[in-house]
Amino acid sequence: MSIVVVGSVAFDSLKTPFGKRDKILGGAATHFSLAASYFTDVRVVAIVGEDFTAEEEAVMTRRGVDTRGIQHAKGKTFFWAGEYGDNVNEAKTLDTQLNVFEKFDPQIPADYMDSEYLFLANIHPALQVKVRDSMPGVKLVGGDTMNLWINIERENLGEMLKRVDVLLINDGEAKMLSGDGSLPRAARKVLELGPKALVIKHGEYGATIFFRDGEFAGGHHPFRAPALPLDEVRDPTGAGDSFAGGFMGYIASQGEITRRVLKHAMFYGTVMGSFAVERFGTERMQGLTREEIDERFNMFRELTHLD
Amino acid sequence: MSIVVVGSVAFDSLKTPFGKRDKILGGAATHFSLAASYFTDVRVVAIVGEDFTAEEEAVMTRRGVDTRGIQHAKGKTFFWAGEYGDNVNEAKTLDTQLNVFEKFDPQIPADYMDSEYLFLANIHPALQVKVRDSMPGVKLVGGDTMNLWINIERENLGEMLKRVDVLLINDGEAKMLSGDGSLPRAARKVLELGPKALVIKHGEYGATIFFRDGEFAGGHHPFRAPALPLDEVRDPTGAGDSFAGGFMGYIASQGEITRRVLKHAMFYGTVMGSFAVERFGTERMQGLTREEIDERFNMFRELTHLD
Repeated sequence: MSIVVVGSVAFDSLKTPFGKRDKILGGAATHFSLAASYFTDVRVVAIVGEDFTAEEEAVMTRRGVDTRGIQHAKGKTFFWAGEYGDNVNEAKTLDTQLNVFEKFDPQIPADYMDSEYLFLANIHPALQVKVRDSMPGVKLVGGDTMNLWINIERENLGEMLKRVDVLLINDGEAKMLSGDGSLPRAARKVLELGPKALVIKHGEYGATIFFRDGEFAGGHHPFRAPALPLDEVRDPTGAGDSFAGGFMGYIASQGEITRRVLKHAMFYGTVMGSFAVERFGTERMQGLTREEIDERFNMFRELTHLD
Repeated sequence: MSIVVVGSVAFDSLKTPFGKRDKILGGAATHFSLAASYFTDVRVVAIVGEDFTAEEEAVMTRRGVDTRGIQHAKGKTFFWAGEYGDNVNEAKTLDTQLNVFEKFDPQIPADYMDSEYLFLANIHPALQVKVRDSMPGVKLVGGDTMNLWINIERENLGEMLKRVDVLLINDGEAKMLSGDGSLPRAARKVLELGPKALVIKHGEYGATIFFRDGEFAGGHHPFRAPALPLDEVRDPTGAGDSFAGGFMGYIASQGEITRRVLKHAMFYGTVMGSFAVERFGTERMQGLTREEIDERFNMFRELTHLD
């Protein structure tokens, strides 16, 4: 099975209490691809500028990621500069330069069309709708969004929500999207907007998946996966995209989409998110082994399982 | 087995987004006793004033709680008025009248002396030390504290920490007590101050227990119990004390103190905390059944367990 991810490839300049890095490889599609590559074949659709070199591309291709869907445009790659204080859940944006990303018109290569899984990383919801409609054959669509689109693109976002099977957002976004401060009520309201399942990420407290009644075999009670109590979050950038990569990658590696598969996918999502933050940028996600992943999976199981 | 709890019995006036109540029965020892009463024999040591009537006492005795350790003094019972906004984790104190509680000098009745378990609810740490030393025969001591004592009674608190086996505090208190913003590091630092185990409560995200290396049979990895995603937290007052009651009550009901018992106790703690907040004051905790408790226990298991 293979998965197509559509989203940003970017350069990030980051400052955290543990240090700083200038213009390192980042972007939602990058973090997602690397995390998902440990589970399934990944095909990426993105746009980069002339400052994106063979070195950056090799970070993805070394992990077997198919980069033929990356468009190369005149100009510079999407650039973001941010800083994290002691509260690693809150990024302070210092600079955003959309550059070539501003004119991103995602095109799915013909060779990608047999993919059964699709992940719409956080881009303009109208583009997400277009991409999703251009791949009518996919079996499962995952999607992300952000507070900006919830605020200013409600109509397009509504169309996008009708087209995703699983939406992955965080606590604040779920409350904003539903207009409800109670997380379980917020979850039900979001599920009424379209998705069959909703993953709400709680940062250092893990994530919960809520299911629409009647969807997915095996019951409809929510399921919560823990985050590992980590000593040091060196760089939280990409944690959510790495979660999504582990989550969607694991699902794509399985033959069926059941509640049991989705529960295990939640664990693999939190596992990949916990690795991502251990080092800056994609550093940790470049050189993992499947053994390390399974070892941490077992730690998470031991952390939460009674017997 | 029986457990002695020493703490406040109070009247609370509460306002939450779901309504208000004037002068209803509250206090840490009250909430703890009721929750623990579903697991073991509970004996309470507290002080009340002349406004505390047979009606309030009956709330405890109907649940089999031994109230002979409640001192009756001239004056009024400890009174607290508070308000919760949309963020139910933050109480706004409107009024605090210590009244007879100010002169509380806890005395353990001779008939309580054969208890093997002791819980020191949040009172002045010097009193906690005195009580603990007056019961040298106990097998396990649990304790609570608050930010006030962390700020102004550091020395007495240090003595208290050397005398408790399990400390139960929340995220903010753990960070304040350790001076460390990273929860796992904060946990290790607190464990170095005395306790063999530390329970950190995360509000709606559950709670984690950290173990001192070498203590308790069955490993030393932390363990996290979830909180139920609840639609409506009607009144969070007493959630932490009800957690402690379920946690300590379950431990006291078991013959041994192992990691396995402590893990199950974490689940029973979160179960009782989740019931407590469903209604105002002690309303929910007065009329539970063991069947309801076990049903919710199983929901929590299903919420977090993969298989």
